[in-house]
Amino acid sequence: MSKARNESASRERDIVATAARLFKEKGYRATTLEDIAAAVGMLKGSLYYYIRSKEELLYLVVRDPIREVYSELEAIVAADLPFTEKIARAIANHMTVFHLHYPHIAVYLHDYRHLMDKLEQNVIETPKQYQRLWDTLLRQGIDAGEIRDDVDVTMAGYALLGMCNWAYRWYNPSGRLSPQEVADVFTKIALQGLTRA
Amino acid sequence: MSKARNESASRERDIVATAARLFKEKGYRATTLEDIAAAVGMLKGSLYYYIRSKEELLYLVVRDPIREVYSELEAIVAADLPFTEKIARAIANHMTVFHLHYPHIAVYLHDYRHLMDKLEQNVIETPKQYQRLWDTLLRQGIDAGEIRDDVDVTMAGYALLGMCNWAYRWYNPSGRLSPQEVADVFTKIALQGLTRA
Repeated sequence: MSKARNESASRERDIVATAARLFKEKGYRATTLEDIAAAVGMLKGSLYYYIRSKEELLYLVVRDPIREVYSELEAIVAADLPFTEKIARAIANHMTVFHLHYPHIAVYLHDYRHLMDKLEQNVIETPKQYQRLWDTLLRQGIDAGEIRDDVDVTMAGYALLGMCNWAYRWYNPSGRLSPQEVADVFTKIALQGLTRA
Repeated sequence: MSKARNESASRERDIVATAARLFKEKGYRATTLEDIAAAVGMLKGSLYYYIRSKEELLYLVVRDPIREVYSELEAIVAADLPFTEKIARAIANHMTVFHLHYPHIAVYLHDYRHLMDKLEQNVIETPKQYQRLWDTLLRQGIDAGEIRDDVDVTMAGYALLGMCNWAYRWYNPSGRLSPQEVADVFTKIALQGLTRA
């Protein structure tokens, strides 16, 4: 890659990272392309050299982290492992991607509906598709006799997903617990509950 | 109350309910006072007879449900009951208020930061205050020896709150399960986990 292309790619990464941060802080709708241009030290006109619209920028902010968390969960669901191990890995995968791509994931969870076109064209995975993978995982656990069969599976899926997704409101990438430590607490609660044995 | 005042109060309730529905469907920022006026069959100018601003309307949308869920949780935390019973009641309270005031609660959870002035003046309870009540509840359980002491309390609180709050994304007030049935699943997971006994 030439030096000029390298600089251009690094400039684009800078724009996407800045957009992620501003979308998270101010909300997607409230953030303008002018805000983003100013934060990276460019004129709005120059920004159009890198991106066509605010919606495209939102797409670039969320695309890679969403693919990563989704495809890793697919691999976990397909793996030949005991259910308890799969749940532990699914929760750890969620929290790890969260940690690695924090503002990006938070922007997706708060503002994904502004990407409806891309979601409908299946260019990007929907929350619904991610949820279905969790449901499949839970059904595997029931079929294997590892999970209690006296709870509604859909509700149990929502419970786990809620536990993990809600982190977008409170997660601090430089917080005192690592993503694996957070995942360990969530896994204990999900599998054994809070009651003292 | 005179007939005219009755009509005025009923008109105001109609405006607040319509605002809740539109804020939920389109998002707070994207909804204009014109949209709300049109949906209740008024001119925007007439709307100002009832409310002063969109922000005031957001406040009216969330005020009563938030007070209700918060003060009921306070009573549960203060009650002299075993921890397991308190957790069951806290989760049921959350889901019941959710059910009774669905779009209102969803608007609060998605858009509460547009109410920062009111939150800072303590005119309305913050998510942080609600979370602290859950933390207090969990610490009572640990002190009483009813909860396992090998999980981080703050994380456990976030897990339960996430489970309950995330419902704002999927809850359907006319869905197949009652709020109590949803709460029962969440309580089983919170206390005993998913693993088959």
